[in-house]
Amino acid sequence: MELDAVIESHREAYLTDLFEFLRIPSISTQSAYRPEVERAAHWVAQRLRTIGFPTVELIATELYPLVYAEWKPHPGRPTVLLYGHYDVQPPEPLELWTSPPFEPTIRNGHLYARGAADDKGQFHIHLAALDALVRLGGRPPVNFRVLVEGEEEVGSPSLYAFLRQHADRVQADLLVLSDTEMLPPGVQSITYGLRGLNYYQIEITGPARDLHSGVFGGAVPNPLQILCELFARLHDRNGRVAIPGFYDAVAPLARAERRQLAALPFSERRFRQQTGVAGLSGEKGYTTLERLWCRPTLELNGIWGGYTGEGAKTVIPSRAWAKFSTRLVPHQDPARIARLVRQQIRKLLPPSVRHRFEVLSTGRPWVADYRQPVFQLARQALSEGFGRPAVFIREGGSIPFVAEIDRRFHIPCVLMGFGLPDENAHAPDEHLALENYFGGIRSVARFYQKLTGLARGR
Amino acid sequence: MELDAVIESHREAYLTDLFEFLRIPSISTQSAYRPEVERAAHWVAQRLRTIGFPTVELIATELYPLVYAEWKPHPGRPTVLLYGHYDVQPPEPLELWTSPPFEPTIRNGHLYARGAADDKGQFHIHLAALDALVRLGGRPPVNFRVLVEGEEEVGSPSLYAFLRQHADRVQADLLVLSDTEMLPPGVQSITYGLRGLNYYQIEITGPARDLHSGVFGGAVPNPLQILCELFARLHDRNGRVAIPGFYDAVAPLARAERRQLAALPFSERRFRQQTGVAGLSGEKGYTTLERLWCRPTLELNGIWGGYTGEGAKTVIPSRAWAKFSTRLVPHQDPARIARLVRQQIRKLLPPSVRHRFEVLSTGRPWVADYRQPVFQLARQALSEGFGRPAVFIREGGSIPFVAEIDRRFHIPCVLMGFGLPDENAHAPDEHLALENYFGGIRSVARFYQKLTGLARGR
Repeated sequence: MELDAVIESHREAYLTDLFEFLRIPSISTQSAYRPEVERAAHWVAQRLRTIGFPTVELIATELYPLVYAEWKPHPGRPTVLLYGHYDVQPPEPLELWTSPPFEPTIRNGHLYARGAADDKGQFHIHLAALDALVRLGGRPPVNFRVLVEGEEEVGSPSLYAFLRQHADRVQADLLVLSDTEMLPPGVQSITYGLRGLNYYQIEITGPARDLHSGVFGGAVPNPLQILCELFARLHDRNGRVAIPGFYDAVAPLARAERRQLAALPFSERRFRQQTGVAGLSGEKGYTTLERLWCRPTLELNGIWGGYTGEGAKTVIPSRAWAKFSTRLVPHQDPARIARLVRQQIRKLLPPSVRHRFEVLSTGRPWVADYRQPVFQLARQALSEGFGRPAVFIREGGSIPFVAEIDRRFHIPCVLMGFGLPDENAHAPDEHLALENYFGGIRSVARFYQKLTGLARGR
Repeated sequence: MELDAVIESHREAYLTDLFEFLRIPSISTQSAYRPEVERAAHWVAQRLRTIGFPTVELIATELYPLVYAEWKPHPGRPTVLLYGHYDVQPPEPLELWTSPPFEPTIRNGHLYARGAADDKGQFHIHLAALDALVRLGGRPPVNFRVLVEGEEEVGSPSLYAFLRQHADRVQADLLVLSDTEMLPPGVQSITYGLRGLNYYQIEITGPARDLHSGVFGGAVPNPLQILCELFARLHDRNGRVAIPGFYDAVAPLARAERRQLAALPFSERRFRQQTGVAGLSGEKGYTTLERLWCRPTLELNGIWGGYTGEGAKTVIPSRAWAKFSTRLVPHQDPARIARLVRQQIRKLLPPSVRHRFEVLSTGRPWVADYRQPVFQLARQALSEGFGRPAVFIREGGSIPFVAEIDRRFHIPCVLMGFGLPDENAHAPDEHLALENYFGGIRSVARFYQKLTGLARGR
């Protein structure tokens, strides 16, 4: 097929281009990297211009620019809103990377770099597919709006502001993005559900200053101890989140969906090997996939306080900190959950300490009806691009933008994932299989071709 | 009096000398400071030579040198073993110091520097007193052995090795040291009891690598959560340490001692102001002084794991760490307590995680009979040096060497403290009141004069 030939002949060019993108340390969570995050925005805009997009804009925001592009050559055909993000997670701990996080390296058929899977590598699949389609036909087969943000890892504040103010510029017939994962290697997956996310930080203050633990130990509240007791009490013995009202709005799992999930090619043994845990854990009464995809959680993401250096220091610190998050499922409301979490913390902390509670970011859960025609086209495209059948899955991660688009525009959101669960998104040695990168380009290009036949406006 | 005149005329000289000592960042807990720790040892040796000690040695050890000096001009009189330590705690967090920790600064009658109270400043009181006595009489009034170590803040391993191998070189009629505190300002104190200390570190491993908390959250053991649950379960609801056997050997508090402690000029309100806590806490059924001095504790000294930087990172970390310690009272045995702690941790941790438990240092508790004559001489000397009555107290901190000397030689240990509980030993802005420094020199010199009348060998 002509399309595959174009893609094949540009393998080196696409990879070289992606390497360039991955070399930019666009860490949005750390303000010191601001110039690099902005450089990544410029890189994306330039790339869209090179492909041929007639309209490409960098839209300034309060934080990092949005890249917006339009190419609508076919008045009668559907319009795709293609989304991606050019920011990445921090690479720490650096010493656990085999090769430096911002020097892309290929080992054993995998491309290693921060952002290889989340999301630069996966978004680049679409850039390459568009490039190939334009080389083939002089223009894309359907209409496109492209929106790429640099704040995904910090809760996308500017993206939401843009949606509120410029709803007309994101009007489309469907949303397409690749920022999710496949189930096991070799099973192409379309994601129809995502968890929401609230991310919190708490600071607990006991004494006004650090104290000698010998002189003062036993009579003053130790904020480290109180932090431990607080988080121990936020789960019950069955692994459930012990916050009154937390589960009130959770949609019960339908028997049909439980059956479908149980039929997926998921191996608990492989999952244990992947994660390297000595044993699994979680909410009683649910399978591992249900716990990961369909049930809400509360997880500690970081704790610190007191002496953490070499050797011993006998101190009762003034303060202790924790970062933690709740993953949310339909139909939990993030604002309400934040209120419940705040209330319960206030209730559990003893009067002998002070605390400061912050919600750092927030995002809604989402679930779609995958029986719609556009999902079936996506499944066909993936099956053809990889030469084997694809499946429908949910995911435990969060893409707040998807939930927001669903809530505002009620259009289908098609999430084709090319990452693998053991590819270390958010961890050292993040990588992407080259097989999935190139199979992704073939599938995505086919999907865009198939959309020419889709009725507009649903 | 002649002695006071000599001291008065050397005020500037003694302070200048102490400043020099305090400027050496002899942080024994951090191996990068090795040259500075050794420089402090040389400084002490040189100072003892200047005073006139005929025998001064630097004794090499596996870690930091012991400074040993002897001057025994009076065969018929008692021999004092004077102890001090020239190492200090790390100064972190640096940003909380008003003036840099190793640039001694006087503000409002207080000398600010790391080590000002613990123990360089207090040990220097003895150096200055000896200097004044020698200026006055050409030699000290009794015999002296001086032993100064550089490993007090790391558990004194070399000191114990020296005691085992050279018991003859530390033979004396009494041990004297100043590394403790006074009760409130204006009440000179002699300490007759100290808590022991075991210091531990634990590492808990869940997944083999850091995981994305969205993708994996809810189904794998989170080591941060498990650390919190572990430490929550090491205390019961009454603030007691929940480790079977922990209290077995604890000597019950005699009614007479409880009465004496209750009569001390201790203000709970002032203690709360000093520490800046919103409320006090601790073991039910005991007063604050009893909790601080006579009851054992388990305190977290540091916790860390996961993401602790700016903003949000949705990670389930592979590992979590805690540093913690148990303060021990007579007659708890440190080795047995370490075994009990290890056993209980092993029992409480779920099989889904791995862990590594270490005992970083260990030291015995101690209590003395303050009715012995030498304690009464010390009380008189303090009363004269400061012009007001002194009291007997216990302390919550640990000086393992005192317990060890007591156990080996059964000689009285006289602990005259010149620090104040709010002088931030082990914390930022550590300081010593100049009034107590100079009052200390006057008292200590008098004490050594009074010892001439003490019977040898008890």
